[in-house]
Amino acid sequence: MASFKQIDLSGVFPPLPTPFNQDETVNHEHLRNNVAKWNEIGFKGYVVQGSNGEYTYLSDEERVELVRTVKQAAAPGKLIIAGSGCESTQATINMTQKMAEAGADVAMVITPYYFKGRMTNQAFMHHYEKVASASPIPVILYSVPANTGVDLSVDVVAALSQHPNIIGIKDSAGDVTKFGSMVQRTEASGFQVLAGSASFMLGTYTVGAVGCVAALANTLGKEVCQLHSLCKEGKMEEAKKIQHRLIAPNSAVTRKFGVPGLKVAMSWFGYYGGPTRSPLLPLTPEEVDSMRADFQSNGFL
Amino acid sequence: MASFKQIDLSGVFPPLPTPFNQDETVNHEHLRNNVAKWNEIGFKGYVVQGSNGEYTYLSDEERVELVRTVKQAAAPGKLIIAGSGCESTQATINMTQKMAEAGADVAMVITPYYFKGRMTNQAFMHHYEKVASASPIPVILYSVPANTGVDLSVDVVAALSQHPNIIGIKDSAGDVTKFGSMVQRTEASGFQVLAGSASFMLGTYTVGAVGCVAALANTLGKEVCQLHSLCKEGKMEEAKKIQHRLIAPNSAVTRKFGVPGLKVAMSWFGYYGGPTRSPLLPLTPEEVDSMRADFQSNGFL
Amino acid sequence: MASFKQIDLSGVFPPLPTPFNQDETVNHEHLRNNVAKWNEIGFKGYVVQGSNGEYTYLSDEERVELVRTVKQAAAPGKLIIAGSGCESTQATINMTQKMAEAGADVAMVITPYYFKGRMTNQAFMHHYEKVASASPIPVILYSVPANTGVDLSVDVVAALSQHPNIIGIKDSAGDVTKFGSMVQRTEASGFQVLAGSASFMLGTYTVGAVGCVAALANTLGKEVCQLHSLCKEGKMEEAKKIQHRLIAPNSAVTRKFGVPGLKVAMSWFGYYGGPTRSPLLPLTPEEVDSMRADFQSNGFL
Amino acid sequence: MASFKQIDLSGVFPPLPTPFNQDETVNHEHLRNNVAKWNEIGFKGYVVQGSNGEYTYLSDEERVELVRTVKQAAAPGKLIIAGSGCESTQATINMTQKMAEAGADVAMVITPYYFKGRMTNQAFMHHYEKVASASPIPVILYSVPANTGVDLSVDVVAALSQHPNIIGIKDSAGDVTKFGSMVQRTEASGFQVLAGSASFMLGTYTVGAVGCVAALANTLGKEVCQLHSLCKEGKMEEAKKIQHRLIAPNSAVTRKFGVPGLKVAMSWFGYYGGPTRSPLLPLTPEEVDSMRADFQSNGFL
Repeated sequence: MASFKQIDLSGVFPPLPTPFNQDETVNHEHLRNNVAKWNEIGFKGYVVQGSNGEYTYLSDEERVELVRTVKQAAAPGKLIIAGSGCESTQATINMTQKMAEAGADVAMVITPYYFKGRMTNQAFMHHYEKVASASPIPVILYSVPANTGVDLSVDVVAALSQHPNIIGIKDSAGDVTKFGSMVQRTEASGFQVLAGSASFMLGTYTVGAVGCVAALANTLGKEVCQLHSLCKEGKMEEAKKIQHRLIAPNSAVTRKFGVPGLKVAMSWFGYYGGPTRSPLLPLTPEEVDSMRADFQSNGFL
Repeated sequence: MASFKQIDLSGVFPPLPTPFNQDETVNHEHLRNNVAKWNEIGFKGYVVQGSNGEYTYLSDEERVELVRTVKQAAAPGKLIIAGSGCESTQATINMTQKMAEAGADVAMVITPYYFKGRMTNQAFMHHYEKVASASPIPVILYSVPANTGVDLSVDVVAALSQHPNIIGIKDSAGDVTKFGSMVQRTEASGFQVLAGSASFMLGTYTVGAVGCVAALANTLGKEVCQLHSLCKEGKMEEAKKIQHRLIAPNSAVTRKFGVPGLKVAMSWFGYYGGPTRSPLLPLTPEEVDSMRADFQSNGFL
Repeated sequence: MASFKQIDLSGVFPPLPTPFNQDETVNHEHLRNNVAKWNEIGFKGYVVQGSNGEYTYLSDEERVELVRTVKQAAAPGKLIIAGSGCESTQATINMTQKMAEAGADVAMVITPYYFKGRMTNQAFMHHYEKVASASPIPVILYSVPANTGVDLSVDVVAALSQHPNIIGIKDSAGDVTKFGSMVQRTEASGFQVLAGSASFMLGTYTVGAVGCVAALANTLGKEVCQLHSLCKEGKMEEAKKIQHRLIAPNSAVTRKFGVPGLKVAMSWFGYYGGPTRSPLLPLTPEEVDSMRADFQSNGFL
Repeated sequence: MASFKQIDLSGVFPPLPTPFNQDETVNHEHLRNNVAKWNEIGFKGYVVQGSNGEYTYLSDEERVELVRTVKQAAAPGKLIIAGSGCESTQATINMTQKMAEAGADVAMVITPYYFKGRMTNQAFMHHYEKVASASPIPVILYSVPANTGVDLSVDVVAALSQHPNIIGIKDSAGDVTKFGSMVQRTEASGFQVLAGSASFMLGTYTVGAVGCVAALANTLGKEVCQLHSLCKEGKMEEAKKIQHRLIAPNSAVTRKFGVPGLKVAMSWFGYYGGPTRSPLLPLTPEEVDSMRADFQSNGFL
C-alpha cells in the first residue's frame, strides 16, 4: 500500500461555502452548479466543511451529505478534503469515518477549542493521535485562531508530523515565521504545509508552503491559481504584483466581512452565494459598497 | 398567566458535571446519586449542560437525556436551568424546545462564538430575540468569554432585558464594573443578574447580582450557600472571610484545572467525579497536589 | 521610628491632572487653584504624577516640580503620593529620592513594562525590592494593565508585601477576584490595597480594599467620598445606588475618553481642565456630547 | 536639494545593543570595538537606540551620546539611523533635532503607546506629521507591538507615506499580509518598508520589503547579509535554506530571551555583550543552554 505521505497537496483548494435557500435549508443543486463551474479552473481539489462551509451551523448528517454531493460533482482527480473535526475526540473519530465513507480523500481536523485553558500541547497530541490512528484516510491538522482562540505550537506540529496518517496542516493564522519553522522541522517526513488564505500565499510559499486553501478562490479562482503557478515557477516579480492585488479582496471576504461577504462576492462572479445561516447576518448596503470598492480598486470588477 | 419575569433566580445553582464511565459513556446512575446528595444542600436549583457539563462533547440526545435525569432526581421545587445553546439560531431554538419538553424550567443560552468577527451587537440581538420568542420557557443569557472569546456588551444586555421571555444573565467574566452597569440598566424590567463563579460572588452581589452559578458549589455547596446567605443578610465581615477562603479552591476547579480538576475535587467530598471526555486530559499527580494544597490551606480538607 | 506600615491609606485620593497652557507648558497657578478647591473636599490626600498626570509626557524636572507645588498647596495633613516610576530600576530609585525631597509622603511605583516578554515575576521582584530598599519614603505598587500591558501576579504582590517599605498597591485593573486574593494573602502584614478607579470601589471594598485612587474624584469628589463613607459604615443599599450612578461618568473620564475627557469634565465643575500634551488629542464635539450624556443621565449635570 | 525619498534603505541594519559595565554605566570603548568588527560586514548601516539599545533605560543625554559614538566609529558611508521617539510629541521633536546634530542620517520614531485607548489613527497622524515636519533629517516610522501594545494601521502608514520627510517604516510585527498591503499602497511615493526581524525577511522581501533591521545581525551578521543578497538575486531555494536556519537563533535573541539573550549570544561570536540594565535580569543557566541549543542545532556554534 502506498504511504499516505505520498499524496500530493500542492495546489489551490477553495473551501466551499454551503448554499442555502432563503429558509436556510441546504440547496444541493446550487452546490452542484457551483462545483461544475469550479471544475473548469485548475484547482487541485476542494475543501468541504471548513469554516467557510459554516460547518458549525450544520447537523452531522448535513455535513456528511455535503461531502457526498461534492464528491459526485467534482471532476475526476480532484482531491476532496473534508472537515471532520468536532469538539470531542470520539465524535471526531466517528465523523472522520463517515466522511471517508462519503468519499472524502483526506480529513481536515480542526483543533478542539472550547476548554481553551486545558488545550495544552499534551491534549492536542492526544486528540490528534487518537483521531489519526482511527482514520481510514489521511489527516490534515487545521488551525484557525481567529475563530477558535487556540493555536498549535510548532513543537506539536513537528511531533504529529511523525504520525504516518498525518500528512499536513492548514494554517490560517499566517505567521510566516511559524510557517518557516514548521516546514524546516517537518519536511524530512514528507509533511506538507498549506497556507490557509490567499493573503499570505507568496510569503509562505517562499518558506516552503506547497499549497493554499483560499476562500478567495471561490470567486477569483483563476487568479489564485495563477499566483500559485507563478510561485512554483519562481517568477517573483509577477507573483508579487498579483499577490498585492489579491490582499484587499481576500481580506474583504475573510477578516472584514466573513462568509456573508464571500457569498455576496460569489454572486458577482456567476456563482450562487445566497444567505448564510443565522446568527450570521447579511451585509449592510454600506458593507457591500466597501467590499465592492476593494475588488474594483484592484481591477477585479 | 404569570410573567416569566416573576421567576426568582436568587440562590445558588451548581452547574452539574456529567458523570462518565471509564469508556466515556454517560452514567446516569452516578448522576442520580450525586443529585440526591446535592438535594440536601440549600440550592435554589441546578444548571444542567453548562460548560462544566462538558456539553460541547455531548450529542444532542445525550444533552436532553441528562436534563430528564436531573429533573427526575431533583427534589421538588428545585429550578432546573438547562443549557440549550448551539452555534446556529435554528439549532438553538430546536434544542430549547427539547429541553423544555424534558423538564427544564429555564433555558440558558450561551453566546454563539465561532465566527467571532461577525458576532456584532446586531447578530447577538437577532439571535437571542429569535430564540427567546420561540421558547416555551424563560431564557437566561450566558456569557463565558474564557471559553468563547466573545462577550455581550452592556448595551445588548440592556436591550434584551426588555424581552418578556429573557429574564436574566449568567456572566462568568466577573467584571464587577460591568455587573454594576448591567444591574443599573436592567433592574427596572425585573431582569436578574447571576454571578458565574464563586470567586466574585460578594463583590457582584453588592452591586446587585441576585444569585450565583458556581462550579465550586458541586464540592463546597454548603459554604457557597453560606456566603449567599451572609450577603443577603448584610453580614459583610463574615461574608468577606468566607469569600476570601473560597477564592483559591474556586480558581482551582475553574481557571487552573477546569472540569478535570472539578471532578477530582468532587471525589474528595463524597461525590462521583470520574473521567472527562477526551480531549480533556486527567490531571497530572502534580496538578492534583497543587489543587489539594489550595483546598487545604483554606481549611477545606 | 514608627513603621511605614502604620501609615493609613484608607480614603479617597484624586490622581491630579497636570494643567497645561495652550502652548503645552505647565501652569502651576492653575494647579494651586484646583488644589485649593479640592482641599475643601474630604480627600485623604492627592496622587501626583499618576497616569492622569500625563507623567509620561513630562520631563524629570517637571515631575518633581509638580510634586513640590502640590505639597505647598495641599491643606495640612493631606497625604501626598507621588508617582516616581521609570522604566529602569536606577532611574526609579533616583526619582523616588527626588520626590521625597520635594515633599512626597509616599512613592507610587508603576510596573516597568517596555520589555513585556522579560517582565517575569523575578524581574518585578528584583525591581521593587531594589527601589523600596533605597527609598526614604514608603512605596506603593502600581499596576495599570490598560496602559502598560503587564500585570503583577498575586504571588508577587504577596511576596513584596513582606518588605517593610512596601505598604500597599494601587490596582487599576479591577478584577474583584484578584482583589480578594491580594487582601487575603497580605492583610496580616499590614499591606493595604487601593482600588484604582471609582467604577469598582464598592465591589473591591467588600473584599477588603481600604481606599481608592479615582480619576472621577477630580470632578465628582464629594460623591466619591460619600461612596467611601457609605462603604465604611456598611450602608450597602445606599452605597449600591451611588455606585451605580458613578459607573458611567467614571468610564467616560477613563476608558472611553481618557485624560482629554477628564479635563473637559473638570471644566464643567469649576476646575481648570485645559489641553493635554500631544499626541493626546482634544475630544471631538461628538465625544463631548456623549460624555455629557453620561453625566446627565446619572443626575450629575 | 535631493529629496529625502532618494535615500536608499535597502540592506541590513543591526540594531546596536548598548554596552554596559557591571555597574550599569555605558561603556563607549566596548561600543567602538564592536562597531569596528561590524564595519567589516556588509551592513548598510546601523540602528542606534532602537529597542535592542535599551533606549527606555537611558537618559536623554546618554541616548544622544551613543549616537555620536557610533557615528564616529562607523565606517564611511554607513547610514546611521537613530531612534528618537519619546512619548510626547514635543519631546520627540527635541530628541530628533539632537540626534541630527549628533550625526544621525535618519530618525526612527517609535509609536507613542502609553495611553493606548487614545492612540487613534488621528493621534498617530498628528504626532508623526508634527515630528516629521520639524525634523531636519528623514523619518522612519517604527512599530513594535510586542513592546508597545499598539500598531499602525495600513491606512495611517499609507497616508503618512505622502509626507516628504517620512521615507519608510520598520515593522517588527511581521504580518506578511500587512507588509504586502503597505508596499502596494506606498510604493508609488518611494516609501520603503523594512522588516524588523530576520525571522520573516524572506517572506516580507518577496512582497516588497527592501531591507531589514535584525537583532540577529549583531551576532550572525554575515549570514543575515547573505540572506539579503540571495533574496535580491532571486536565489529562492538557497534563500529558503538559510532563512530556515536563522529562525530559531533569531527567535532566541528576540521573543524568547530578549536583549539579555542577545548580549550572551554576542559574546559567543567575539563581541562585547555584557549586562543589561535592571529590571532586565541576566539569563538563567538553563536559558543559556536552551539558547545555545537553538544556535547549535542550526549549525552556528
